Amino acid sequence: MADAASFQFSGQRFTVEYRLSGTEAEARTKAALVCNDQTVEAPDKIIPTGMIREQILGRVERFTAATASSLATLSYPVELLGGDCAQLLHVLFGISSLRPGIRVERLEIPEAALRDWPGPRFGRNGLRDLMDIPVRPLVCGVLKPLGLPPAALADLAYQFALGGLDLVKDDQGLADQPFGPFEERVARCAEAVAKANRETGRRCLYLAHVTGRWETMKQRALYAKRAGAGGLLVCPGLAGFDALRDLAMDDAVTLPILSHPALLGSFITQPDSGMAPACVFGQLPRLAGADASLYPIYHAGFPVTRDDCRAIAKACGEAWGGLKPIFPTAAGRMGFERVLEMCEFYGQDLLFIVGSSIQQHRAGLVKACRLFMDEVARSAQ
Amino acid sequence: MADAASFQFSGQRFTVEYRLSGTEAEARTKAALVCNDQTVEAPDKIIPTGMIREQILGRVERFTAATASSLATLSYPVELLGGDCAQLLHVLFGISSLRPGIRVERLEIPEAALRDWPGPRFGRNGLRDLMDIPVRPLVCGVLKPLGLPPAALADLAYQFALGGLDLVKDDQGLADQPFGPFEERVARCAEAVAKANRETGRRCLYLAHVTGRWETMKQRALYAKRAGAGGLLVCPGLAGFDALRDLAMDDAVTLPILSHPALLGSFITQPDSGMAPACVFGQLPRLAGADASLYPIYHAGFPVTRDDCRAIAKACGEAWGGLKPIFPTAAGRMGFERVLEMCEFYGQDLLFIVGSSIQQHRAGLVKACRLFMDEVARSAQ
Repeated sequence: MADAASFQFSGQRFTVEYRLSGTEAEARTKAALVCNDQTVEAPDKIIPTGMIREQILGRVERFTAATASSLATLSYPVELLGGDCAQLLHVLFGISSLRPGIRVERLEIPEAALRDWPGPRFGRNGLRDLMDIPVRPLVCGVLKPLGLPPAALADLAYQFALGGLDLVKDDQGLADQPFGPFEERVARCAEAVAKANRETGRRCLYLAHVTGRWETMKQRALYAKRAGAGGLLVCPGLAGFDALRDLAMDDAVTLPILSHPALLGSFITQPDSGMAPACVFGQLPRLAGADASLYPIYHAGFPVTRDDCRAIAKACGEAWGGLKPIFPTAAGRMGFERVLEMCEFYGQDLLFIVGSSIQQHRAGLVKACRLFMDEVARSAQ
Repeated sequence: MADAASFQFSGQRFTVEYRLSGTEAEARTKAALVCNDQTVEAPDKIIPTGMIREQILGRVERFTAATASSLATLSYPVELLGGDCAQLLHVLFGISSLRPGIRVERLEIPEAALRDWPGPRFGRNGLRDLMDIPVRPLVCGVLKPLGLPPAALADLAYQFALGGLDLVKDDQGLADQPFGPFEERVARCAEAVAKANRETGRRCLYLAHVTGRWETMKQRALYAKRAGAGGLLVCPGLAGFDALRDLAMDDAVTLPILSHPALLGSFITQPDSGMAPACVFGQLPRLAGADASLYPIYHAGFPVTRDDCRAIAKACGEAWGGLKPIFPTAAGRMGFERVLEMCEFYGQDLLFIVGSSIQQHRAGLVKACRLFMDEVARSAQ
């Protein structure tokens, strides 16, 4: 038990940039409210002078006024972070999420406090090493639709891998349904991809979707590993960001993780509330340990702009303490027609989810995958 | 391993009511999109005929058109539910959360499928039995502000309990900070409330906030139990709804649970996207096993209306399979001035969070609590 009485604050603070809507005066009022809500959440008159006011209460470090909304950078003591995602998210946005017109834009954590956050185990380079693909965008096929029997999913996986895709992932809808039990699916798909790899000499990775209660997720992750899966698909919006973090840090699991945005949408469907896509699809999954983060691409029917995608890619790749860069993973029913655009937009460090329409290509799936990979190779030059 | 090949659907379906914004035509298009997104999430042409189209794909059961938005009740096969919150939330809103103009209003699960959901262990009556308060609204004080040393928090807890409050809860900001370690705080506060109970002859419950990674939460819950805490405060938005469910179902923990809305706000800050407050603060916590669900009250600066509060209270209390009714728990810096209004609005089955301003009452805290309880008794008649 730490000695609370003799505790001294380090003086180190982490910062969160919030976009606050309304006039400058309204935004300044909101900034003060966030300083209070995200820390003591108490009426001013019960906040004692001294340590609580001077150290714990949020502090406005910068304020940039603009017409319809202002940007305020607030700081909090690193001592409020417990080294887990639950507490981080709480200080970031726990109470303020309940008030409209407050949006989390960006998080900055001083390097010393980042020591509690090992982040991605593999990251971009680790994932590239596993597949022996030093440069170029990676392409991932998806096993769908939900309801195909495990043998049919495994056959799809085999064809994707034989056609030269770099990764094959479970659809996020595949859980452990009676018509598609987890263990049967994962064993068959892992085996199918291994068979294709023996034939091609390549190292395609099969990513198994693990969901459920925390203990179930962990058991499934370990099963997937034993069955030969090359990685995991995890939905932190459903299971909690700490479930992702635990799987990423688990020394018995040690598989790369692709995070999926299921249920995280409500953070981004409102322009002036919630969280910026770069935070929720870039910073948070990376901090929690995802090696790649999937999100909906611009111009695909989702409220994500080109600027958002650029900012997500930046958050995935920029220098951030010791956290390895991860792959931005663009998804949204994309086919041949968007390959060149994506390669130009993202450059080499992109994971591209190929839309399921490829299953209906007139050349047949294996050939279609080969044509697709040719298109990527041409486009990425 | 289940035999996927011989599987037959039961034909039982659960339903979700969505509010879909736009013209009737736009809303109908959205309904079809949700049917697809929330199940197969695949282009129509790759969905085979037969079981997948007939059973798995969402189905529009009812559609009520209106001017600015329509209501569509969609059904999904119960076989998509895995008995855990992650999978339930996924089918409810996983992908559709990413599209603006779609809002979850209400969930209905057939009684047979509810067997996987034991729900609250105590519920309203169980909680009333623990405190020996058969009728009248319950009142809960909050230990804040964050930063007070454990001894000061324990003294607050003692005064609340001595003054006759029914429950005393940790503020959700109290985690395991170096200036306020979890074990020291919980041991001292539980002891302080027990001491007050010996003096009053009453049975005030102290609710300890448990947060962190899943294993940490469970360890903390067990510690709180051993230390004599009377219940737990859990934030499902931070830790995941399955963490709440696991704690509620754990036969070693067996403590009542109050759920807290931290980070769930982004579901409710937009009128036409996200989830209805009655779903996110009523149905979901109850299904996951909370015995009481805290949410911000109307007219307190949050985007929650009187109608929302009425609907939340209904969702907490209405007949729902074998799920016990739970306490709607109204919060939002309320003092004496809102007691009568709350008692009239909610009736007897209310848990009232008393605002921290009571700490500054000129009569002193213990006396103020007694006056407050008198006010509740008068108002609830």
